[in-house]
Amino acid sequence: MLEIEGSYYITWCNYFKGPTIGIAWTQDFKTFVQLENAFLPYNRNGVLFPRKINGNYVMLNRPSDNGHTPFGDIYLSQSPDMTFWGKHRLVMKTSHYWWKNVKIGAGPIPIETTEGWLLIYHGVCLTCSGFIYSIGAALLDIDDPAKVIVDCENYLLTPEEPYERTGFVPNVTFPCATLHDADTGRIAIFYGAADTYCALAFAHVDELIDYIKAHPNKPI
Amino acid sequence: MLEIEGSYYITWCNYFKGPTIGIAWTQDFKTFVQLENAFLPYNRNGVLFPRKINGNYVMLNRPSDNGHTPFGDIYLSQSPDMTFWGKHRLVMKTSHYWWKNVKIGAGPIPIETTEGWLLIYHGVCLTCSGFIYSIGAALLDIDDPAKVIVDCENYLLTPEEPYERTGFVPNVTFPCATLHDADTGRIAIFYGAADTYCALAFAHVDELIDYIKAHPNKPI
Amino acid sequence: MLEIEGSYYITWCNYFKGPTIGIAWTQDFKTFVQLENAFLPYNRNGVLFPRKINGNYVMLNRPSDNGHTPFGDIYLSQSPDMTFWGKHRLVMKTSHYWWKNVKIGAGPIPIETTEGWLLIYHGVCLTCSGFIYSIGAALLDIDDPAKVIVDCENYLLTPEEPYERTGFVPNVTFPCATLHDADTGRIAIFYGAADTYCALAFAHVDELIDYIKAHPNKPI
Amino acid sequence: MLEIEGSYYITWCNYFKGPTIGIAWTQDFKTFVQLENAFLPYNRNGVLFPRKINGNYVMLNRPSDNGHTPFGDIYLSQSPDMTFWGKHRLVMKTSHYWWKNVKIGAGPIPIETTEGWLLIYHGVCLTCSGFIYSIGAALLDIDDPAKVIVDCENYLLTPEEPYERTGFVPNVTFPCATLHDADTGRIAIFYGAADTYCALAFAHVDELIDYIKAHPNKPI
Amino acid sequence: MLEIEGSYYITWCNYFKGPTIGIAWTQDFKTFVQLENAFLPYNRNGVLFPRKINGNYVMLNRPSDNGHTPFGDIYLSQSPDMTFWGKHRLVMKTSHYWWKNVKIGAGPIPIETTEGWLLIYHGVCLTCSGFIYSIGAALLDIDDPAKVIVDCENYLLTPEEPYERTGFVPNVTFPCATLHDADTGRIAIFYGAADTYCALAFAHVDELIDYIKAHPNKPI
Amino acid sequence: MLEIEGSYYITWCNYFKGPTIGIAWTQDFKTFVQLENAFLPYNRNGVLFPRKINGNYVMLNRPSDNGHTPFGDIYLSQSPDMTFWGKHRLVMKTSHYWWKNVKIGAGPIPIETTEGWLLIYHGVCLTCSGFIYSIGAALLDIDDPAKVIVDCENYLLTPEEPYERTGFVPNVTFPCATLHDADTGRIAIFYGAADTYCALAFAHVDELIDYIKAHPNKPI
Repeated sequence: MLEIEGSYYITWCNYFKGPTIGIAWTQDFKTFVQLENAFLPYNRNGVLFPRKINGNYVMLNRPSDNGHTPFGDIYLSQSPDMTFWGKHRLVMKTSHYWWKNVKIGAGPIPIETTEGWLLIYHGVCLTCSGFIYSIGAALLDIDDPAKVIVDCENYLLTPEEPYERTGFVPNVTFPCATLHDADTGRIAIFYGAADTYCALAFAHVDELIDYIKAHPNKPI
Repeated sequence: MLEIEGSYYITWCNYFKGPTIGIAWTQDFKTFVQLENAFLPYNRNGVLFPRKINGNYVMLNRPSDNGHTPFGDIYLSQSPDMTFWGKHRLVMKTSHYWWKNVKIGAGPIPIETTEGWLLIYHGVCLTCSGFIYSIGAALLDIDDPAKVIVDCENYLLTPEEPYERTGFVPNVTFPCATLHDADTGRIAIFYGAADTYCALAFAHVDELIDYIKAHPNKPI
Repeated sequence: MLEIEGSYYITWCNYFKGPTIGIAWTQDFKTFVQLENAFLPYNRNGVLFPRKINGNYVMLNRPSDNGHTPFGDIYLSQSPDMTFWGKHRLVMKTSHYWWKNVKIGAGPIPIETTEGWLLIYHGVCLTCSGFIYSIGAALLDIDDPAKVIVDCENYLLTPEEPYERTGFVPNVTFPCATLHDADTGRIAIFYGAADTYCALAFAHVDELIDYIKAHPNKPI
Repeated sequence: MLEIEGSYYITWCNYFKGPTIGIAWTQDFKTFVQLENAFLPYNRNGVLFPRKINGNYVMLNRPSDNGHTPFGDIYLSQSPDMTFWGKHRLVMKTSHYWWKNVKIGAGPIPIETTEGWLLIYHGVCLTCSGFIYSIGAALLDIDDPAKVIVDCENYLLTPEEPYERTGFVPNVTFPCATLHDADTGRIAIFYGAADTYCALAFAHVDELIDYIKAHPNKPI
Repeated sequence: MLEIEGSYYITWCNYFKGPTIGIAWTQDFKTFVQLENAFLPYNRNGVLFPRKINGNYVMLNRPSDNGHTPFGDIYLSQSPDMTFWGKHRLVMKTSHYWWKNVKIGAGPIPIETTEGWLLIYHGVCLTCSGFIYSIGAALLDIDDPAKVIVDCENYLLTPEEPYERTGFVPNVTFPCATLHDADTGRIAIFYGAADTYCALAFAHVDELIDYIKAHPNKPI
Repeated sequence: MLEIEGSYYITWCNYFKGPTIGIAWTQDFKTFVQLENAFLPYNRNGVLFPRKINGNYVMLNRPSDNGHTPFGDIYLSQSPDMTFWGKHRLVMKTSHYWWKNVKIGAGPIPIETTEGWLLIYHGVCLTCSGFIYSIGAALLDIDDPAKVIVDCENYLLTPEEPYERTGFVPNVTFPCATLHDADTGRIAIFYGAADTYCALAFAHVDELIDYIKAHPNKPI
């Protein structure tokens, strides 16, 4: 979460005649001050980096449509003041791997590492019974996070457990947030399971980064 | 056209993994300097007001999709520097009148008058043989152009002439630009006809404004 | 038009949370009394026979959807009192002939003849540029108009003239009403052309009936 | 079930070139007499009130389309004789609550109470893995059941058990019939689970009514 | 599997700018020689008969589209040389039975019996939560397998077990291959369950054939 | 047209539970002998080369769907005997040029020249009022016509005349056949206009080839 002198910034999918990214800050998690919407509709999956980069706030986001969007790539937008946004860049597109060939979107706030920003994201494919949401990961350049250093060809996790496969929306694992213990490198990944349960998976930063680097996307 | 100390700004529908609004300026109409895209995809019909309002540049635009968008309302976005955009507002929506019940979008740059900004726009309906593009008009508040003073319930012009009804895309009259003679109040409206011809219609500001005010939108 | 002791009944496509058939009567064509809607949504092309048949009012109609319906057959419904409707029957379906293979619907009020009810209707096909509306004809049984005596395989008229091919909705000839001179057998068929013009075609009852009987629908 | 002097009336979704409402009666549940279809296609969820109201039979129903209808509101139609139907009224529409924002439809026959007709119905939403069917309830005016006294904002039951979540059509709870013990006020609600199982839930009329009244629909 | 003098032929869904049927042969299941694609795109479910018939190789197949094909019938094509294919015939179409009313396709290689070719195939229906794949069976003429002797109206197996109902694609039982013990008549049917598990079902040829003949398709 | 010892071969879009390519031959254009369909459904635009190439008959064709196909590339198939077809190759795909970005298909029989096979084809784009059919040209390798030597980036002809813009299907110019005068190099191109008229355009082989070579497709 982006924290600036005791103010914590949150983002969410806000309704502005269509979905777009809302922004607010709070100091006590009791009262919140809502800022301008970052973008025009239609947009989802707005995720702020935890600090300014090159003097600007940076937000990952995904241009969308007004429904169960059947497409979607990860973009990045920048702002000097959290009100006006620009310098939009494409970060990552869907690819030929089955688990992320329909749409992808950011989830937890990227984790700063010595190897780059560790981005945990969701990838989506479409079966004849609906979408399947899996969890993937990539490394973005520390100084220019629109640059992908390496994107992992494999998912980290895909719905397999009963609580991931059965529920309000079957077959969904959707990463939402991480807690990172800097001392041990342990990460707790909170993810929604089947749009019904809140599940928790653990990993170590080093392991993840090693795995990502060992299994980069390959051309078709 | 927005002109600042000899620099003329132009906007267009730019391809950025999908349509969005491109911006550039020129001093001699021979060399052009392209700025950042104003928005994320998907957006069309970006139209700059001819001067700053309340210290910001202001651009009308229409969030869209990636194809022959079957919806669309007019929004307004603001920028202190022509690079970062925010303070997005909804200006006008489609309405129950047949000729503008599917989508609407800005066209020529608004004309400043003592009664408000005179906005000439296009309205679209859908028949079983495709879209029909007509020309409409409204007045926006001078100091807060997100506020509509009055929107005319009738179209000013709808495809009726052979060159408007037959061509590459039949049944299109699409207003693109106006020339305004301040002395006489005469306006020349350049509009695309059937996506094939460039046509020209004339009107007087006073007549238009009187007509708009005499025929406001009415509730259903 | 159905006339009962000086009261004239009209039907139209009424909006009842979706299209359905409205009914009203008038004695002077200045004031109208609206009755209950005949049907639930979604329905179009409601056409009353000009007299009771077997003690009931009879109305042709076409179950539809809420948009530019891509299907549609002609049904018939009956009522003892113009308020409650039932005994619904299927009269005619679309067929394999190109000009009526997508939908068909009644238009003018059927004309009573010694050979049966002369039904002039519209047939619709779909090209890659939209629907084409042509005019066809059939004979229905006098005492049981849900029975088709003979349906003509050919259209009587299809868009060929400039005013039928070009306009608000290109390629539409839509029969709406007929005037029948009982003495000479001459019929005037009023039809909409390109949803823009009101056109007029003439025929003789005997000719039409001979033509229909000489060119019946054939199996595929 | 509507019972008149020993004759029991049943309704179902009948195929009449498309779904519509069939009606039949029986005295011994061995032989059945089928009446006219109540409506033209396309209609589903026809439910007769258990007695005449204001001298007419009354049937809830839902205008539909020919497939997995992605819309649907509850209407009411009236008949003096179970053959001719009219005086159609809209009773309830889908609303902004997630569980009933796509379509709604009647299920069990309404239960007459001192507070009005207790209507148990299904509400449907659409996830990216298909529809979810939940069970809701409302009170309708005793003398004019097209008037909704109060509609409960919450579902009574939504798929959560394994047998509701997994099966031929996952995530379906579809109320079909109730048994009402007038002495104790106990209701048995039979509902289809996942289009696979026949499930049974119990409630008390008073509790249900109290709950409905305590949680009315609220504006958005 | 088609075996010719020690060469084993395999077929699969090959990507040729779209799905079509690939063919290859092997002698040791370590090295494979790929032949020409049998067909133009789009095609799936290519299944070779285990021997030549009337001097030609014969392949069942299903013309398809480029996605989750919502239609599909079983065709048969012939070839003198495994390179050029022709004499295409329609074998079986979808029918009015719920479990095979959307598409059907061959699966295991047909088993030669004294009663004809025993064809085990999949049938598909579409619920509002996606497709359901069931397993069916039919007998084809030994000398002219485009002729259906009898097609069973009932499925042999439909998803009911947890491992068939829950998984990557819920509700799928997809027959892929059979082993046939000629001495005892016992058949092992390998089928994919929920696109996740490899499942195994047993039957006896005689039982199957008796069942098929006792339950033929009936007209609607 | 392919002529072999006095037999002339014709191809057309045949209905075989869906469109595919029919083949027949005639010696007197009065009686015709129909052969096997060349392909499984769905296929259109089958065009035979005027002589065998490398010992096989060669046919251009376009895998399609069952309706107003919104995609389509040109393939080539080969046959030793006009009955069995194989060795399918992709010849040309749609490209980024507006007039051929939706689908392309062969039309007249290719003309043999010293520079290669001169292929005149149609290219299609989609406007919000339907498809536009234009005429383009390319050169294919004489010995291996699956190889494109050069494909012209510009159309040769696009609907501009009244009889091309207005008719049964507006905005269609569809090349069907050519006559080639070997002495003068003059070509007559017969093309359908608006699916209503038969139109005729003239060109010279040398001019066409020079133009194609001077305006090759360029990368985006």
